[in-house]
Amino acid sequence: MSRMSILTERDLRAAVRLDISAVDCIEQAFAALATKAIAMPPILRLDIPEFRGEVDVKTAYVPGFDSFAIKISPGFFDNPRLGLPSLNGLMILFSVRTGLVEALLLDNGYLTDIRTAAAGAVAARHLSREDAAVATIFGAGMQAQLQLQALMLVRQIRSARIWARDHAKALTLAAEFSHAHGIDVVAIADPHEAVRGADIVVTTTPAEKPILMADWLEPGQHLTAMGSDAEHKNEIDPAVFSCATYIADRITQTRILGELHHAIIAGAAQPDQPFSELGAVIAGKAQGRTGANDITLADLTGTGVQDTAIANLAVTRAKDAGSGQVIENHINTGDAV
Amino acid sequence: MSRMSILTERDLRAAVRLDISAVDCIEQAFAALATKAIAMPPILRLDIPEFRGEVDVKTAYVPGFDSFAIKISPGFFDNPRLGLPSLNGLMILFSVRTGLVEALLLDNGYLTDIRTAAAGAVAARHLSREDAAVATIFGAGMQAQLQLQALMLVRQIRSARIWARDHAKALTLAAEFSHAHGIDVVAIADPHEAVRGADIVVTTTPAEKPILMADWLEPGQHLTAMGSDAEHKNEIDPAVFSCATYIADRITQTRILGELHHAIIAGAAQPDQPFSELGAVIAGKAQGRTGANDITLADLTGTGVQDTAIANLAVTRAKDAGSGQVIENHINTGDAV
Repeated sequence: MSRMSILTERDLRAAVRLDISAVDCIEQAFAALATKAIAMPPILRLDIPEFRGEVDVKTAYVPGFDSFAIKISPGFFDNPRLGLPSLNGLMILFSVRTGLVEALLLDNGYLTDIRTAAAGAVAARHLSREDAAVATIFGAGMQAQLQLQALMLVRQIRSARIWARDHAKALTLAAEFSHAHGIDVVAIADPHEAVRGADIVVTTTPAEKPILMADWLEPGQHLTAMGSDAEHKNEIDPAVFSCATYIADRITQTRILGELHHAIIAGAAQPDQPFSELGAVIAGKAQGRTGANDITLADLTGTGVQDTAIANLAVTRAKDAGSGQVIENHINTGDAV
Repeated sequence: MSRMSILTERDLRAAVRLDISAVDCIEQAFAALATKAIAMPPILRLDIPEFRGEVDVKTAYVPGFDSFAIKISPGFFDNPRLGLPSLNGLMILFSVRTGLVEALLLDNGYLTDIRTAAAGAVAARHLSREDAAVATIFGAGMQAQLQLQALMLVRQIRSARIWARDHAKALTLAAEFSHAHGIDVVAIADPHEAVRGADIVVTTTPAEKPILMADWLEPGQHLTAMGSDAEHKNEIDPAVFSCATYIADRITQTRILGELHHAIIAGAAQPDQPFSELGAVIAGKAQGRTGANDITLADLTGTGVQDTAIANLAVTRAKDAGSGQVIENHINTGDAV
């Protein structure tokens, strides 16, 4: 008999929040990338053009975690017409010792939101100035809000600015965030002005052309670009590569999917140019910021180790809370059919 | 609110059996490979050498089916020491229109067993002589038994022979099968003798060197090799390629994983040599057997379209029977975290 837990989105929202232990959990996953024999195969992708659908499957084995996750992320872009979200999905957690299913995490993408925001906090913790106090967010969606919350967990953020292509959405997010979190947040219509004087800038948009220009940058600023997770997406002016210290979440992936990809196309970086990864900076094997005047750029495309880490955290928390349903599955070994 | 069914191995064993409708279902999937714009990405594979574990993820979108399956198949080869089966796994069925999860099929590999055996029946139906009556099975495991049952669904099998490396196991299977299915089944210790006079020979072993030799073959015989699902596996003497009509389940896959792979290495087939696929034979787009004296060879490595087909059948059947548990998962769209 095999037993597995089924955790719904509601169970998972109760179990995992964007807090410092989620940030620590994701930091540990990045460090493992630099220090352990992880296995992270290339993403499996299925396209269903007939219904404007696509499905990504990611996984990673991370030594030190008892379980590994397989994450299935469908995106069906006609869903809003049916009153459904475009993105959903689930994770499945397996024992690293037996391969048996331990839990089904029916998170509809919630855990991806959390692990993505937590990675932003990890990047800021290791790359931004310790006295960073002013944050600028590009974008006004779910990740805009979460990335700002994430920064507040690792730096004493006093004020924030929101720029978005749709200024009305920026105004709404600024007002709501200000109200909910008690810091001064303003919407700024001009992106250059929004960057002026900021200590940290996080871009969270699906832009396909640069929205953050190199000649706007000031000494000491830290940038995190997390909007690009596909070949055609690009938020950062390739010229930034000539003035900033560049750090990838996973170099083999950012060369294909990240800001580095576009810098290579523009000739601002070489295809085989060595760059450090965030995990190596965390583990003390590579240098990130060397002084108060450096400009740093973290390029986050999302990795399977983050999924395995957050899924482990979620299941541990849910177990402690006694939440979820248990399914018992009889294993029939070798009987006649 | 999203609703999904959870079907356990017991539910699935009750819903799907190896019968003619399972065979028809798999035949339809093969025909789709030849006639429709299916999408079947390469297999995702994760290795966990620390625990002798490996995980394969397969999927396929098949136009005409309402849902697509993603199958996750872990193999953990130290499990028997823990009293657990080496192979297990599950399938997840998604709507082709919305990408929402429709069902979790906790089959522990049962549906794979059925769809693999059904493919053997499909191959025999389209490639063996209609009057085939004597079957020989190489191997004495689960697939040996299932492949023989599968042949009985499509041909009037009067008698069968079992050869296995472990003759004691062949004796046991012969006695049990004979008793359960009321046909004459004998275990034969010499593989050449087991092949003599047979109309259909099915190889179901994990052999890594040929166990079925070309000079044993007789005019009119049909062979199905289904043991090879990995680069190093090989059941059929490459010289068979010079006397038999070769049919692949999926040519791009058999060139890498199947008997064709070893024939290419041995120089008995060319790397780019065109061969027909089973689906094309079913659809009437390619010729299989042309007369009573042809020798035919079907090379079955297992495809994602079979998984999508059998999962659709299982969920339809389970729904009709009212079996399984329903999980309701609240979808939280865009709320603050």
